[in-house]
Amino acid sequence: MKIALDVMGGDFAPRNPLLGAVGALQSYPDLFLFLVGDQERIAEEFWRHGGRAFGDRVEFVHASQVVPMDAQAIESVRQKRDSSISRCVRLVKEGKADALVSAGHTGAVVAASTILLRTLPGISRAGIATTIPTEQKPFLLIDSGANIDSDPVHLLGYAIMGSIYSREVLHVPNPRVGLLSIGTEDVKGNELTKQAFKLLAQAKINFGGNVEGHDLFEKPVDVVVCDGFVGNVVLKTAESVAKAVMHWLRSELTQNPLRMFGAYLARGAFLSVKQKASYEEYGGALLLGVNGTCIIAHGASTPKAICNAIRIAREAVTQNVNSRIIQEMRRHCEAESENTAASRA
Amino acid sequence: MKIALDVMGGDFAPRNPLLGAVGALQSYPDLFLFLVGDQERIAEEFWRHGGRAFGDRVEFVHASQVVPMDAQAIESVRQKRDSSISRCVRLVKEGKADALVSAGHTGAVVAASTILLRTLPGISRAGIATTIPTEQKPFLLIDSGANIDSDPVHLLGYAIMGSIYSREVLHVPNPRVGLLSIGTEDVKGNELTKQAFKLLAQAKINFGGNVEGHDLFEKPVDVVVCDGFVGNVVLKTAESVAKAVMHWLRSELTQNPLRMFGAYLARGAFLSVKQKASYEEYGGALLLGVNGTCIIAHGASTPKAICNAIRIAREAVTQNVNSRIIQEMRRHCEAESENTAASRA
Repeated sequence: MKIALDVMGGDFAPRNPLLGAVGALQSYPDLFLFLVGDQERIAEEFWRHGGRAFGDRVEFVHASQVVPMDAQAIESVRQKRDSSISRCVRLVKEGKADALVSAGHTGAVVAASTILLRTLPGISRAGIATTIPTEQKPFLLIDSGANIDSDPVHLLGYAIMGSIYSREVLHVPNPRVGLLSIGTEDVKGNELTKQAFKLLAQAKINFGGNVEGHDLFEKPVDVVVCDGFVGNVVLKTAESVAKAVMHWLRSELTQNPLRMFGAYLARGAFLSVKQKASYEEYGGALLLGVNGTCIIAHGASTPKAICNAIRIAREAVTQNVNSRIIQEMRRHCEAESENTAASRA
Repeated sequence: MKIALDVMGGDFAPRNPLLGAVGALQSYPDLFLFLVGDQERIAEEFWRHGGRAFGDRVEFVHASQVVPMDAQAIESVRQKRDSSISRCVRLVKEGKADALVSAGHTGAVVAASTILLRTLPGISRAGIATTIPTEQKPFLLIDSGANIDSDPVHLLGYAIMGSIYSREVLHVPNPRVGLLSIGTEDVKGNELTKQAFKLLAQAKINFGGNVEGHDLFEKPVDVVVCDGFVGNVVLKTAESVAKAVMHWLRSELTQNPLRMFGAYLARGAFLSVKQKASYEEYGGALLLGVNGTCIIAHGASTPKAICNAIRIAREAVTQNVNSRIIQEMRRHCEAESENTAASRA
């Protein structure tokens, strides 16, 4: 298993990607990593961070450019052809790497992957599938920001791809798919969701109808489908609220010594929620629908998060997620044309 | 001050609206209430719940129908012409009541108010302005679900109306307005937000640019503008996450006796956050842009929430929110036509 790691991507690059690489090499004996970035600098740091033991399982790939966080996504692909992101994508395109992992500029990773790798047959737009933790079970949110102005056919693709990913990588049998809307009845929603509802209801997926913001964390389905604008807002709002509630509680808990003592006794509970709800455990989001395996890690990724992102990449490759998507889309298109033929006859 | 209260609306009607009415009559000596609903039933309950002291400050208005929570919004206005919601709206339209308060079917309240009262001059669509608590300060989210498929001009109206409401009723000097999007730069967003950004940047408001889901609860602006679909999803997601985090913590805190004891000592902190973050304090959301004052209370409203919704209605009327909106829109249209004339000359 060969994976290209963007060592220059993320808020704590190159340190955290390199530490994550060392962790992953320790955990997965069959793993080979392309470490992509400013070769001189990253090689020196890699050796220093314990990489020496894995010298024969890595290859440094030089990239002379880095995509800054405020860059325009599509322009970055054209203007920074030697960026660490584009280099990683090209390693996948050339068949040298089985997958790529980057904690860099999300838009740039999406743009480079879509432009250089193209989408899978039957898929018109790629979508980011993010795993979101809840008390009961994690759910998959797709699209959480790859494709901003979506049409109903894109959402259908997300539903089919999300089901496959949930089943094959997250091991959910017969995953239930919900369409994010503003009421549970099929007539509730905007033009996009009303049209998408009809397509999802006819598709060969376990479609549970519309889900509301209320349901997301209280009665979670397995896969939540929405357009990239709404998904991105929901993802960031949810993170923001969770952080804000914990911060608010902490302020209240430090108001007097009695509360502080109580919080000290109960600290295990706070740590447990914090850990279980951490994005680190899920490592990264899969960009579903491109002809290659591409994992987008959190910008603030810790070494553990990078290591888990590499794990997700391995599983997506091992489980042949892309081949299954191609099969499923072919089956869907055949069923579609049979239906059309039948209705004409 | 005369207010029409939909006594049949909400999950705990008629009990909670009636108890809220008693509370408001106690708090505001100048208040007169039209109690709208199944006259025989509500009169009997009102007297029983302590209403007897206020017999000369209420009038029971009979409504033979109730809009069920699963009704179609627009159909409900046509088919249930004698619903408690429509009766309340008509009392405002006829000038008998200064404002109405309902915890009933939100869509039906919006539809009845828009159809029967019409929108204010210069305003093409009404929007729901919901006050959302954060640790630092509450912010206003508009539109949180009145108008699902919006265009950029609707968002401009929300920005202007939200600024006025924030200044006049929530007493925020020079409120800062943010446009909800998926990146802070003006070029980030979907077609709707990119177009709206240009309009908002030219309007006479304190426009702070795009805000992201991340910022909402961590660096809140005073007014957050978005279309009704996104606003409704954000509102419900935020409620759901906050509830889920508290529930998750509670489960962890009851895992062993030590944690339980700690939580008991620190219980004041939990209660404080719960109380400060409660929708009850804010009572209800104002439907901004209709020619009348209409407060939409939470479906699960407690008596306190109803009482606070009546307080909000009073303030909106006292502060002449609607006259100010008309003035501001007139000024905006004049500036617009001057600009157009200047650019033609």
